[in-house]
Amino acid sequence: MTRPTLNIALIGSGFMGRAHALAFAAADRTFELPLSPRVVLLADRDPATAQGAAASLGIPKASGDWREAIADPGIGMVAIATPNLLHAPIAIAALEAGKVVYCEKPLATTIADAEAMTAAAAASGRPTAVGFTYLYNPMIALARELIAAGEIGEVTAFRGIHAEDFMASADAPFNWRCEPDQAGGALADIGSHIIAMAQHLAGDIASVAGRLHTAYPTRRDAEGTDRAVTVDDQMDAVVAFANGATGTLAASWIASGHKMGLSFEISGTKGSISFTQEQFNELKLYRAGPGRTNGFTTICAGPEHGDYGAFCPAPGHQIGYNDLKTIEVKAAVEAAAGLPSAAKSFADALAVERVADAIRRSHREGGWVRP
Amino acid sequence: MTRPTLNIALIGSGFMGRAHALAFAAADRTFELPLSPRVVLLADRDPATAQGAAASLGIPKASGDWREAIADPGIGMVAIATPNLLHAPIAIAALEAGKVVYCEKPLATTIADAEAMTAAAAASGRPTAVGFTYLYNPMIALARELIAAGEIGEVTAFRGIHAEDFMASADAPFNWRCEPDQAGGALADIGSHIIAMAQHLAGDIASVAGRLHTAYPTRRDAEGTDRAVTVDDQMDAVVAFANGATGTLAASWIASGHKMGLSFEISGTKGSISFTQEQFNELKLYRAGPGRTNGFTTICAGPEHGDYGAFCPAPGHQIGYNDLKTIEVKAAVEAAAGLPSAAKSFADALAVERVADAIRRSHREGGWVRP
Amino acid sequence: MTRPTLNIALIGSGFMGRAHALAFAAADRTFELPLSPRVVLLADRDPATAQGAAASLGIPKASGDWREAIADPGIGMVAIATPNLLHAPIAIAALEAGKVVYCEKPLATTIADAEAMTAAAAASGRPTAVGFTYLYNPMIALARELIAAGEIGEVTAFRGIHAEDFMASADAPFNWRCEPDQAGGALADIGSHIIAMAQHLAGDIASVAGRLHTAYPTRRDAEGTDRAVTVDDQMDAVVAFANGATGTLAASWIASGHKMGLSFEISGTKGSISFTQEQFNELKLYRAGPGRTNGFTTICAGPEHGDYGAFCPAPGHQIGYNDLKTIEVKAAVEAAAGLPSAAKSFADALAVERVADAIRRSHREGGWVRP
Amino acid sequence: MTRPTLNIALIGSGFMGRAHALAFAAADRTFELPLSPRVVLLADRDPATAQGAAASLGIPKASGDWREAIADPGIGMVAIATPNLLHAPIAIAALEAGKVVYCEKPLATTIADAEAMTAAAAASGRPTAVGFTYLYNPMIALARELIAAGEIGEVTAFRGIHAEDFMASADAPFNWRCEPDQAGGALADIGSHIIAMAQHLAGDIASVAGRLHTAYPTRRDAEGTDRAVTVDDQMDAVVAFANGATGTLAASWIASGHKMGLSFEISGTKGSISFTQEQFNELKLYRAGPGRTNGFTTICAGPEHGDYGAFCPAPGHQIGYNDLKTIEVKAAVEAAAGLPSAAKSFADALAVERVADAIRRSHREGGWVRP
Repeated sequence: MTRPTLNIALIGSGFMGRAHALAFAAADRTFELPLSPRVVLLADRDPATAQGAAASLGIPKASGDWREAIADPGIGMVAIATPNLLHAPIAIAALEAGKVVYCEKPLATTIADAEAMTAAAAASGRPTAVGFTYLYNPMIALARELIAAGEIGEVTAFRGIHAEDFMASADAPFNWRCEPDQAGGALADIGSHIIAMAQHLAGDIASVAGRLHTAYPTRRDAEGTDRAVTVDDQMDAVVAFANGATGTLAASWIASGHKMGLSFEISGTKGSISFTQEQFNELKLYRAGPGRTNGFTTICAGPEHGDYGAFCPAPGHQIGYNDLKTIEVKAAVEAAAGLPSAAKSFADALAVERVADAIRRSHREGGWVRP
Repeated sequence: MTRPTLNIALIGSGFMGRAHALAFAAADRTFELPLSPRVVLLADRDPATAQGAAASLGIPKASGDWREAIADPGIGMVAIATPNLLHAPIAIAALEAGKVVYCEKPLATTIADAEAMTAAAAASGRPTAVGFTYLYNPMIALARELIAAGEIGEVTAFRGIHAEDFMASADAPFNWRCEPDQAGGALADIGSHIIAMAQHLAGDIASVAGRLHTAYPTRRDAEGTDRAVTVDDQMDAVVAFANGATGTLAASWIASGHKMGLSFEISGTKGSISFTQEQFNELKLYRAGPGRTNGFTTICAGPEHGDYGAFCPAPGHQIGYNDLKTIEVKAAVEAAAGLPSAAKSFADALAVERVADAIRRSHREGGWVRP
Repeated sequence: MTRPTLNIALIGSGFMGRAHALAFAAADRTFELPLSPRVVLLADRDPATAQGAAASLGIPKASGDWREAIADPGIGMVAIATPNLLHAPIAIAALEAGKVVYCEKPLATTIADAEAMTAAAAASGRPTAVGFTYLYNPMIALARELIAAGEIGEVTAFRGIHAEDFMASADAPFNWRCEPDQAGGALADIGSHIIAMAQHLAGDIASVAGRLHTAYPTRRDAEGTDRAVTVDDQMDAVVAFANGATGTLAASWIASGHKMGLSFEISGTKGSISFTQEQFNELKLYRAGPGRTNGFTTICAGPEHGDYGAFCPAPGHQIGYNDLKTIEVKAAVEAAAGLPSAAKSFADALAVERVADAIRRSHREGGWVRP
Repeated sequence: MTRPTLNIALIGSGFMGRAHALAFAAADRTFELPLSPRVVLLADRDPATAQGAAASLGIPKASGDWREAIADPGIGMVAIATPNLLHAPIAIAALEAGKVVYCEKPLATTIADAEAMTAAAAASGRPTAVGFTYLYNPMIALARELIAAGEIGEVTAFRGIHAEDFMASADAPFNWRCEPDQAGGALADIGSHIIAMAQHLAGDIASVAGRLHTAYPTRRDAEGTDRAVTVDDQMDAVVAFANGATGTLAASWIASGHKMGLSFEISGTKGSISFTQEQFNELKLYRAGPGRTNGFTTICAGPEHGDYGAFCPAPGHQIGYNDLKTIEVKAAVEAAAGLPSAAKSFADALAVERVADAIRRSHREGGWVRP
């Protein structure tokens, strides 16, 4: 069977750009995709950087101007892995040019931008996809299926955190993640993952009350200058879901000891599910029952779970982070083909940003805020 | 050495009364106490019940009226294990009569009562002790020492929950715990444990924003009548500590799968400590460092930790819940002797109640409330 | 109901003697025992030591000669907590005098002694009980029930270890546990626990091949003299069970990091059970099945499991090591009353010793040895 | 920098052949390899199968005869992923033709074949590599470094198992893994992994005593015929290492509940390391010390550990099974370039086979057998 080709322009050649390029290649080898993805253009602000990266990644063409991608009618998808500030202009231009857009999270640095991007997507009618990598985990797919099937009853609570510690030390330098206008701060940078997870599993968030905390008021930058930090090192919030459930959300990049602690527990009237990304090939499930042998069951990922089998035919062998990214790319390509897809759209990402923004407003204004 | 005797009147002969009686006996065998505790009187509203319980527990005297204990000048300590509504009148009368008072938690059913009790304690100058059993764990003592010694640096976050599931089923009956005027609801009934833990380890709580949720608006009582439930099944809150740290607190008696899930993590600039009561002979400690072998270390309780050695000379053998109660009684007896003691006082318990009350007000009024 | 009294003579006033005294008291308060146990005599080689211990433990009478206990017709049970060498003479004399005998493990220091003790028990027709404390755990009772009910199918394997590390350091001194004629060495001292567990759960052991290893050929004693060590620091063995299952057994007191690591997994054609004493209020159960949610379930001890409920009416609160000893005493008292009992008899303990002896012979002679 | 090309002939197009092809591509993208690996020929017994697989994997040439690879002077490396019986003839022919040989485990189906292969490698002077995938884990590299650095002192014990359950059910069909002359049975099929791990970390094995057990004497094959099973379902052995340490090894494909349970603990006089492949991005390390905070530390894989950083710049994200295979391929390519390499050679694999053979002989003959 000859599949149509999906020509992709990749914008951004940093770590995430490289990850995209590798994931497109891996996805094509791993899955039977409806389209044959081919990264044909790499754009980066600096032409020489673009040239070098394109060469090393086997991408045929390089450019110093992302507008070249927009203008090229042969490009079907624009994949955005630039600094956050550029997401909006590139995405909107690409959508207006009729391209599918696959964008890294966070969607934008302001709610206004995120809304404009979502509106552009709606106006264009083109599919969109956003890089919430952790949602594409086969064990998260299993969690969602179990919840939908009523295995834990009516959901009553979701409590989760995204905990890392790369800024825990006073010596962690001031960098772009500390700039508020680049979507800096723990809430914007990593909090979006736990908000997205909460919405993915427990549904819409109706109301929040949150608090931001900056542990280090200054940090030294690479030049040795002490810079005032105005973004949050951690965020804590109470949430009420549309379905009546309540819970807590937190995000911290100063959570000493946690390297990739995207962790949650979702409880219902008949059971609970608990998870941590630090052991992401496992899911713990509790189902209430009359017996003497109830308890949390540790389910080990295997080919019977979601896309695991595309990577390994035997259970317990484990997939890795890059494999999650590969599944994410598969979803984006399926969306691009107009097929039903697990891809998270701009509208989904906007909902995440609205919750983050509501937490920020609650911190400033006090009290409950509706996203 | 002949020790003075501490004559104790025990008020209440239910489960907790019995636990007190056994713990006084166990504490005297286990520790070298400064006073010889002797439960000499058991009072219960029903004289026959008092009589029967006293006989079975080897207590020489029984009474149908707790006032008899107050009136008896030979009684040095009054131990209160009655329904919560009676805590205040008994405690205040006992303090006014110059007795030491050892009271079960929660201190009272209203803030006004808790304040009156604390004022009575202050006016009397007599020692008080409150039954926050979980704080007396040797591993919690270790946690406190580590924090005080700066092992985790400046505290930046405390996130904790008291999770049980005895009310998770729709079939769990309406009982006294569902009565608001008896300190019913998850927040009052079990939430006090996690609030007390937070204050014990992270210090004073300056501000809270919280939410209560009632999953089952009605429950059927023992007579088969459907009763409206006005108390909370679960509580979620954001807290800000006086030292600037933030975090979350939750309490739930519908947390499916959790039997004694008093769990928390406290993080600082140099490390973290995590704990769950379901494995309470362990403490997990992370200390930041330059090496390649950092991680959470699971410390196993042994005789080098607090009072563990009084129960067992070898590590890893584990103490049980009743042993924690025995340590609590030791603290109460030490307080009664006027010695430095780990006992939590009425003032400590009032601080807990004030936080619970602030969460309740925040739920009603919205926004941040100061305890 | 007035129960008959069981008068007990306790021989030995060291740590284990004291533990016995406390456990008899605790058992009587905790359970509805068929007999009222009363420790009426404490014997110890040194009369002054006996006197002091009796006073501190509230035992009315003390003696410097255990024969006094045998001679006293009012004594119904002799509880032996002496050095191991004395188990045989005391037990045999007590049985010949018609007493119930409750003896600490290991039963004896030689197979010949253990056989003589078991023969004396048979000849006397009197009940016996041996202190295999860990077998009395409610979660081990649950494991046994699950296996008997076929929940894990036909047993195919048992693999276990008793791992501690109190001799792991080169600085751990030479002491009585290093004396071969006092049942010294890891196999004799702690290996008996894992052998007993294997037999308790997987049945008779038909054949063994084992290896002893002495990591430190000399250790310094308390006087500063370097002493040659002739006992094993660790033992490893392959076992074949009478039912065809195979597995491994190990014992080590140099297993760095393990404090009370009595751990095993028992597997069958339909499931597995795994356990470690370091978290002894839990049992992990796997049951094979067609679904996508199979895995090991962590069962948390509660009142629905064996004798747990006698200590605490709520699950998850945990019982401690001393509570296991209390359950052991209950079994001994029930055996003394002629009731069906979980107590392990001298015959059971002899079977354990025979396996240990077979491992020792296999080490010396090579090859498979039948116990 | 232009690197020389390494032309590779891949023999075998089943699951493992495909895994090789993908891993060569992934290794080249992930690492800076000294040679540019290019799979230029795919051979399979069936020409049409070879053709189809080559097309789908992007391999330019296909053949129905592996001898074509040997005859082609342009081929630098022969990668063998055929049924086990063919390993020896292909490897020996390839070595005699001067090729580097990279072979899947087990090395051969008989000791004689394994010896002949190793002799051919020695005679040819060509590098060899064998697919012991689990040894290439960054956390195993860390374990080895810690042991070499004396962090756990003198090694005293290694106890390990390779536990899976894909044959646990009576319904698991008779297949090629049940054929003794194809290296069938749990010991040969999966036991080689735990033997290799033991040797990798604890050194040479001097002596073994082992036992094989066949739980199901017959199994039904795909045609519905009941076939006698003569291979083992599980193996248990005691081992003595050359350095005096002792321990146990086991392998089972009927270990209900285990999916990829390659698990071990290695203990020394100053510490211990424990590991399970089911959470292979973690290593647990215990170091003895004077303090009150000793315990097993759970180390989470990150870029500071071995080759992890080539896959992900952030810790805790986790690598997957296929990434381990990619690291294995890197080692094979480095060996092919004549560089120092972590690749396991035919001589290493022969040592593994000799231990497996010794266990088999011990089972037949009884007693201790030297590999």
